[in-house]
Amino acid sequence: MTVLILTCEEDVTADMVVVHLNALGVPVVRLDPADLTEGVALSGEYVHGGFRGHLSAGGRLVGLSGLRSIWVRRPGTPAARAAAPSAWLTEESAQALYGMLRGSDARWMNHPDAALRARHKPWQLRLAQRCGLPVPATIVTTFPQAAREFAERYPDLVVKPVSGAHPQDPPRAVPTSRVDPDTDFAAVAYGPTLLQRRVAKRADIRLTVVGETMHAARKAAAADAEEVDVRFAPPTSPWCPADVPPRIAEGVRSYLRTAELAYGAFDFAEDADGTWWFLECNQSGQFGFVEVETGQPIARGIAKWLAEPGPTPCSSANGASTAVN
Amino acid sequence: MTVLILTCEEDVTADMVVVHLNALGVPVVRLDPADLTEGVALSGEYVHGGFRGHLSAGGRLVGLSGLRSIWVRRPGTPAARAAAPSAWLTEESAQALYGMLRGSDARWMNHPDAALRARHKPWQLRLAQRCGLPVPATIVTTFPQAAREFAERYPDLVVKPVSGAHPQDPPRAVPTSRVDPDTDFAAVAYGPTLLQRRVAKRADIRLTVVGETMHAARKAAAADAEEVDVRFAPPTSPWCPADVPPRIAEGVRSYLRTAELAYGAFDFAEDADGTWWFLECNQSGQFGFVEVETGQPIARGIAKWLAEPGPTPCSSANGASTAVN
Repeated sequence: MTVLILTCEEDVTADMVVVHLNALGVPVVRLDPADLTEGVALSGEYVHGGFRGHLSAGGRLVGLSGLRSIWVRRPGTPAARAAAPSAWLTEESAQALYGMLRGSDARWMNHPDAALRARHKPWQLRLAQRCGLPVPATIVTTFPQAAREFAERYPDLVVKPVSGAHPQDPPRAVPTSRVDPDTDFAAVAYGPTLLQRRVAKRADIRLTVVGETMHAARKAAAADAEEVDVRFAPPTSPWCPADVPPRIAEGVRSYLRTAELAYGAFDFAEDADGTWWFLECNQSGQFGFVEVETGQPIARGIAKWLAEPGPTPCSSANGASTAVN
Repeated sequence: MTVLILTCEEDVTADMVVVHLNALGVPVVRLDPADLTEGVALSGEYVHGGFRGHLSAGGRLVGLSGLRSIWVRRPGTPAARAAAPSAWLTEESAQALYGMLRGSDARWMNHPDAALRARHKPWQLRLAQRCGLPVPATIVTTFPQAAREFAERYPDLVVKPVSGAHPQDPPRAVPTSRVDPDTDFAAVAYGPTLLQRRVAKRADIRLTVVGETMHAARKAAAADAEEVDVRFAPPTSPWCPADVPPRIAEGVRSYLRTAELAYGAFDFAEDADGTWWFLECNQSGQFGFVEVETGQPIARGIAKWLAEPGPTPCSSANGASTAVN
């Protein structure tokens, strides 16, 4: 049984996992959907009530029924590198490739439907609440008056994009920023704004979950830290392995089960009382920097999950292949 | 409890359903996401482990906890009509609106995740097979040799787009066309191509399903019909109500349950033996023309489904609001 990895060519994180899959003796096919239809080819036949599908990449041919799992890492836009690329060819290629793969019995890390849903920050916050994870008071609003009233109740606020996207091109991360106490909030009327009570944090937590296995890493905050967004702070303390409080572990398991995710990278802020406050869960969050600094065997865990036999844990996201047989 | 309808301003099909909802005495809020943030406003607050959300449209305010159901009809691109539209504002608005709605307990017709998945033609074919519906022999391929071998086995073929999209702008429907027996298929290498055995049909069938209720309509084909795509054929016989064969009804129920769809418009081709061959299921297929010609009460059925209390039938697509409470 083969592991299919969908990612771009330059992806050292995928390289790390491939090394472990090779060590496990598991066949791997790695392809970038951008290489359809130059270098990557596909064929699926629906005859006599059955289905036979094949993928070809780099001269290797693999049958869809021989796929154990599919790792959606950092796939390119389908057919982006075709001889005559177009929006139409991309749409046709996306539907052909993902439509066929969705009909396979492979397990996904992560299933495209679950991945898409998991991007919605307001949905994340609600799910985290329902799973019993502490969520800092948050508002997403286009009502200036609602923003003002929220700021009166929670004077120490941060603002962040709802989508995580950046208004400028090329896209880059938008730092989470503190809100000036004199802010008027009139501009909220022109676009949904996410305001959140700032957690006075003594550490950032990155919790990487692979299947059932959790790897928590902790990075102590500088005492006089002004920068609230760890991605933009000057490097101070390193990431160190940490234990996961039992209630957090329980909430995180419930979150991933409900979200139908096999992989998730959670960000928490640890306050002075030691409480972990849920900030977000990135279903495709990077883990290389954590593994390098902490030595936690995340890449090996992913390789093992991908290589394991067994039913997909996301039966409903993958409904067609499991519910009716 | 209120019914929320997401659609554009000019939508006579939605108007038909609204008339029935008014007759049932059910409050309706209708909005176009394109009108964010001019005319449509939203606010959601996550405080003390709970969530309170509101939408405002046309001066009406509705709480998300007061939503019985959400009908995703023909919504515009979020914030497309904002004062300063941008791809970024669209993304922020989409995540804010749909992210909040995904956290509500309303039932969906149809849930965005289920709708997105249901668009994939290769997935549709596989699901139809698994549900026991007759599917004409089909290939989706970028291998010219595979196309040639398929054409040898099934010399009478039609070709159609995998995605249903059109290569030109503005987008329009691409007719399904017969394949010339002398076709070489070399061009298949440049883009995924869907070839299907042509069904020598004596009628087109449109089966519209609302919840558990099926409305089948049949349109007899002209004896000398050259046009294989009913959408492009000159009008001949009218659409007439038809009975659904029990095995088809069973397969269709299984299809919709697995696809987690509350609404689906199935197209079948009826052959000389009376067999209904599955062609596709459009999760947002129009029904106005069928209702007008057959008198089948589809709009009323949709209104009743939207107005009904009861759990969403798509528990997993809407996982967060049902699985963890």
